[in-house]
Amino acid sequence: MALEMAVLTLVAASAGFAARPALVPWPSSIDVGEGELVVGPDFRLAVEGRGGELVERAAKRFLERLARQTGLVLPSALAPAAKPTLSIRCESPGKALPRLGMDESYTLTVAPGGAALQAAEPWGVLRGLETLLQLVGPGATTAFRAPSVTIRDRPRFPWRGLMLDASRHFMPVDTVKRTLDGMAAVKLNVFHWHLTDDQGYRLESRRYPELHRQGSDGLYYTREEVKEIVAYAGERGIRVVPELDMPGHVTSWLVSHPELGSMPGPYAIEREWGVKDPCLDPSKEEVYRFLDSLLGEVAALFPDPYLHIGGDEVNGRQWNASERLAAFRKDRGFGSPHELQGYFSQRVSKIVTGHGKRVVGWDEILLPGLPKDSVVQSWRGQESLGRAAMQGYQGILSSGYYVDLMWSADRHYLTDPWDKGVDRLPEADRARVLGGEATMWSEFTTAEIVDSRIWPRTAAIAERLWSPRDVRDVDDMYERLDGVSRWLEWLGLDHRAVYTRMLQRLAGPRHDELRMLADVVEPLEDYQRGRTGHYTQQTPLNRLMDAARPESDAARSFSRRVDALLADPALAAGREAIRARLLEWQEIDARLRPLLEGSERLRECVPLAAEASALASAGLEALGFLEQGEKGPETWWASRSPLLERERKPPTGLEVAYRPAIRRLMEAAAAR
Amino acid sequence: MALEMAVLTLVAASAGFAARPALVPWPSSIDVGEGELVVGPDFRLAVEGRGGELVERAAKRFLERLARQTGLVLPSALAPAAKPTLSIRCESPGKALPRLGMDESYTLTVAPGGAALQAAEPWGVLRGLETLLQLVGPGATTAFRAPSVTIRDRPRFPWRGLMLDASRHFMPVDTVKRTLDGMAAVKLNVFHWHLTDDQGYRLESRRYPELHRQGSDGLYYTREEVKEIVAYAGERGIRVVPELDMPGHVTSWLVSHPELGSMPGPYAIEREWGVKDPCLDPSKEEVYRFLDSLLGEVAALFPDPYLHIGGDEVNGRQWNASERLAAFRKDRGFGSPHELQGYFSQRVSKIVTGHGKRVVGWDEILLPGLPKDSVVQSWRGQESLGRAAMQGYQGILSSGYYVDLMWSADRHYLTDPWDKGVDRLPEADRARVLGGEATMWSEFTTAEIVDSRIWPRTAAIAERLWSPRDVRDVDDMYERLDGVSRWLEWLGLDHRAVYTRMLQRLAGPRHDELRMLADVVEPLEDYQRGRTGHYTQQTPLNRLMDAARPESDAARSFSRRVDALLADPALAAGREAIRARLLEWQEIDARLRPLLEGSERLRECVPLAAEASALASAGLEALGFLEQGEKGPETWWASRSPLLERERKPPTGLEVAYRPAIRRLMEAAAAR
Repeated sequence: MALEMAVLTLVAASAGFAARPALVPWPSSIDVGEGELVVGPDFRLAVEGRGGELVERAAKRFLERLARQTGLVLPSALAPAAKPTLSIRCESPGKALPRLGMDESYTLTVAPGGAALQAAEPWGVLRGLETLLQLVGPGATTAFRAPSVTIRDRPRFPWRGLMLDASRHFMPVDTVKRTLDGMAAVKLNVFHWHLTDDQGYRLESRRYPELHRQGSDGLYYTREEVKEIVAYAGERGIRVVPELDMPGHVTSWLVSHPELGSMPGPYAIEREWGVKDPCLDPSKEEVYRFLDSLLGEVAALFPDPYLHIGGDEVNGRQWNASERLAAFRKDRGFGSPHELQGYFSQRVSKIVTGHGKRVVGWDEILLPGLPKDSVVQSWRGQESLGRAAMQGYQGILSSGYYVDLMWSADRHYLTDPWDKGVDRLPEADRARVLGGEATMWSEFTTAEIVDSRIWPRTAAIAERLWSPRDVRDVDDMYERLDGVSRWLEWLGLDHRAVYTRMLQRLAGPRHDELRMLADVVEPLEDYQRGRTGHYTQQTPLNRLMDAARPESDAARSFSRRVDALLADPALAAGREAIRARLLEWQEIDARLRPLLEGSERLRECVPLAAEASALASAGLEALGFLEQGEKGPETWWASRSPLLERERKPPTGLEVAYRPAIRRLMEAAAAR
Repeated sequence: MALEMAVLTLVAASAGFAARPALVPWPSSIDVGEGELVVGPDFRLAVEGRGGELVERAAKRFLERLARQTGLVLPSALAPAAKPTLSIRCESPGKALPRLGMDESYTLTVAPGGAALQAAEPWGVLRGLETLLQLVGPGATTAFRAPSVTIRDRPRFPWRGLMLDASRHFMPVDTVKRTLDGMAAVKLNVFHWHLTDDQGYRLESRRYPELHRQGSDGLYYTREEVKEIVAYAGERGIRVVPELDMPGHVTSWLVSHPELGSMPGPYAIEREWGVKDPCLDPSKEEVYRFLDSLLGEVAALFPDPYLHIGGDEVNGRQWNASERLAAFRKDRGFGSPHELQGYFSQRVSKIVTGHGKRVVGWDEILLPGLPKDSVVQSWRGQESLGRAAMQGYQGILSSGYYVDLMWSADRHYLTDPWDKGVDRLPEADRARVLGGEATMWSEFTTAEIVDSRIWPRTAAIAERLWSPRDVRDVDDMYERLDGVSRWLEWLGLDHRAVYTRMLQRLAGPRHDELRMLADVVEPLEDYQRGRTGHYTQQTPLNRLMDAARPESDAARSFSRRVDALLADPALAAGREAIRARLLEWQEIDARLRPLLEGSERLRECVPLAAEASALASAGLEALGFLEQGEKGPETWWASRSPLLERERKPPTGLEVAYRPAIRRLMEAAAAR
């Protein structure tokens, strides 16, 4: 692959600013040829073979999207063309619906004379069309171009998903559709829809309508909307796996059905975050009758053979407090809540399989008696995935793919389902590791900002799950990710534009000033935000930490420069660029203070701006020592090093993103 | 009003960055009080009186929009509140549909204890709610605020419209809806829908389905979509006036119905721009039978009592060339095509009134025999509006409001329907001037960029038509317009975000560099673009001139600074800021050349960038002479002044927007 990359770089150089094609995920095999295909207003598309209507509709959507991303005026209809610009050939119509293990492979050749896309099933056509759209870039005056390539591509893993939590904050239908568009664009194929939790029951039920009526604040998906979304996803080769989380995370169910709970209630919709006590009562036969009826309805509504029953985070408090359960446990010999959950999972699994579905659940469902065709979704790590595989269970990885935790893209990217020993398992066991899922939990995400929390980082996870394992050059990934992030905007994804709008809301006409600071801060990682203040479902997510991007591009590129400088024996490489950056950042405090102090909503950021400037000053001092070849004196280190520790619970929920790079500069200057 | 403004400025100063409320249009009367209303998550809205469902739905939309623009979590339902934050009182439900002359007046009081909105009819409620949304700005940490005010407001003119040309480039339903949202936000009340022209017949016809089938490339509005849009507009207090342009501009009709033409045909959909020959044949009775049937259908589909029959730009060529018409004219004694058009207009007007509608038409319909209740839409100027008024006809002004001509907002803003003597007409005549309409012709506008061509400039026209005539301070307007432009984004209008996306399409990752140039150029005004190249309906509108904003904010503020400098006897005011700007612009050529030369689509901009830098250099030289108190020598003037003339037909279709300011600097330096 290294050779192919080199060739591509040559091609890119001749095309001016257009770098290597921003393909994400990177294909399993790519050869670059001579020349390029002109994509102009005479672009014609022909569909051959037996792909059927699925392929024809995909081809029409392709034309619409090509017109949108280029601004070209293209025919909206397919026409039999004597000499098409793109011919699509699909061997068979496949099944009507995407399924686990569907054939997503395709071959795409682009040459000056035309492009050809071939696939055995429509799913490969869908994937190949996305690749081609990513290849099309600026070219001649009114035309665009795609480089000559031969791509043979197929996914590494068959299960490549994104979980969206629509319970803690509701995600309207158009948000879901936009998310599905983005998923298809980066070749993800499972939409895991987290429909219920303590904070909301979001699915219309015909059999138990009080569930959604009393458990959702009126914010739920109707059955018709579900069908619409399932069809929309299917058209894009995406399976929809619904999740009804149980036996914990059910407060919203118990509002209307307190009799199912382990304690009598009454219950109200939960507004706070965290692991809560309410839990279904595993000793009650009516609970299983209810679930049989409810899951029957759900099973009929969602065509995919998999149904997710949650199973995570049962804290056992209600179970331990219940006299009725004490008797039941004694009677059955269930010592721990663990055993009780095992019993519950077995019963529910039987119900699920009785409705013709297979079970998916979080780590905790892996208990004796789980049906062998179940899928374990690991939020704990690859170790538990390997353990499940050795016991004969299929599994998918989510640990490391929690995009709500505000990690940088590379950290997700370098997490592999085969890490931590999975790659050393016997092949038969290893093959049970089906892939993974990014998870978008929504404590700190509303529909307004969800695009900016999913994209572009989820594209890096999508590449991990699609591309060969050895595609893991981080700098290369970031460069392509930048292009794909801009390309995703043509789908209507709002992850870039929302940033500006939110800064405008905070700073009005002075949003460009605020951007100076916003560009170099990052929201705290992991679960730290929850400790910086009191957050509920009603807390507005409209502060600087909600606008700020999970990853600061400016800080990342600064960090790379610092590394290059410190790796240079002469300590000179890029020094002036580093100095210029630091001089800019040094000004943040002085430039922003009037704005921040003048606005009550921004006042909390005054110390943050001061810190940003102080860190830049310290960095400049360090740079001075390095330049002079002097060791920074002890007194200097003693006075400046406290800057390297940030406040533990900053009320802004934000961190200066270039602090680690300043640390490296300072440590080098102090020769530590 | 001057006093009120001063008071507002004081208030604004205390609120930090929030300037005077960005109200557009400015209300007819406003008094500012002490303090402010806190708008937080406990915002509650109560509806009283007899406004009915129209008001209730408007109130719910208000809550949704307030939540969106603030990020606050607000209840989506109205609740009877003991002490509401906002109480709305509407005296009567009014008519179900907006109509000419409806009562749009309202009184809005905002005080620390709460806000109250009162109106006689729902239309006033709609207008007042937009005012309140514009008043809400940043405040305490998680809350927002609205300043204490008492506003008594009503429109100056009853007809305040926007015409959208959906024929030359089709505008999809969601684009139309977004446009209606923007219109309602700035209190426009007539959506004039230009549905047919040479380039497309965009309205489904049940009686003559071949019209839309053969005349639209498949891009038309179904009857259901029309009803949906009429209802959507009605909810927002906007009338919908459809236009079927005739007897010229009908090529798209003649594709399926060549027998209606003055020449036998065959006809194909016109792809070029300009005034074309095809014309209905006024001598054929079947033409009137056809129109009677067609207009009957249209009259039934659109509830507004007005129907627009176009009437503009008949070039007479077909009429002069037709032997049949020669005989007809001789027979009837019609010497000129003018008289023929008069005959046609009379016949069609009778058909229109026969279907219970009143006629609207462009200037040219003002011919003997026009029914007295018709409305003349003047694209020629206030003089013809005055002439029509004196003859007893009502009129609306569009001359001066053509937003497709790329004028600056102030030029539209300072155009008044009462200019050029209309204000000296007897009051009864002057009252026949009903208002005006901005017109968005779409030769050079697609759905992709139309928002950026309509907004924010149309808001300045909306103010002209709503606010008192003496509200005409240009600097003040621009300041408020800037705020409103950002506020309009919360409606989903794309006029700001599309700029970045288009620069990204042109320059990929280097869009920020291209922005240096894009920020200081403007598309050529009036009809000059059509002379710089060959444009058709298929020409992609994806070049820098399509991305560039009609008005460069940077150039405008630079121009103001130059004026201030030259007005200062010491020639010192703001000199260093001017110099800094010019130094930046001087770099454009060097900074951008690699980008521009490396891209075939941008190469045409190389001379433009060079010109931008050369102008900046000349400006710096002029500044030097002024600073030294020297007169720029003749040789200097001779060598630099050619820069002040731009190329007549620049292929970029763009102009350096700060050229006029450089001229003023240079002329001052040369003491000319």
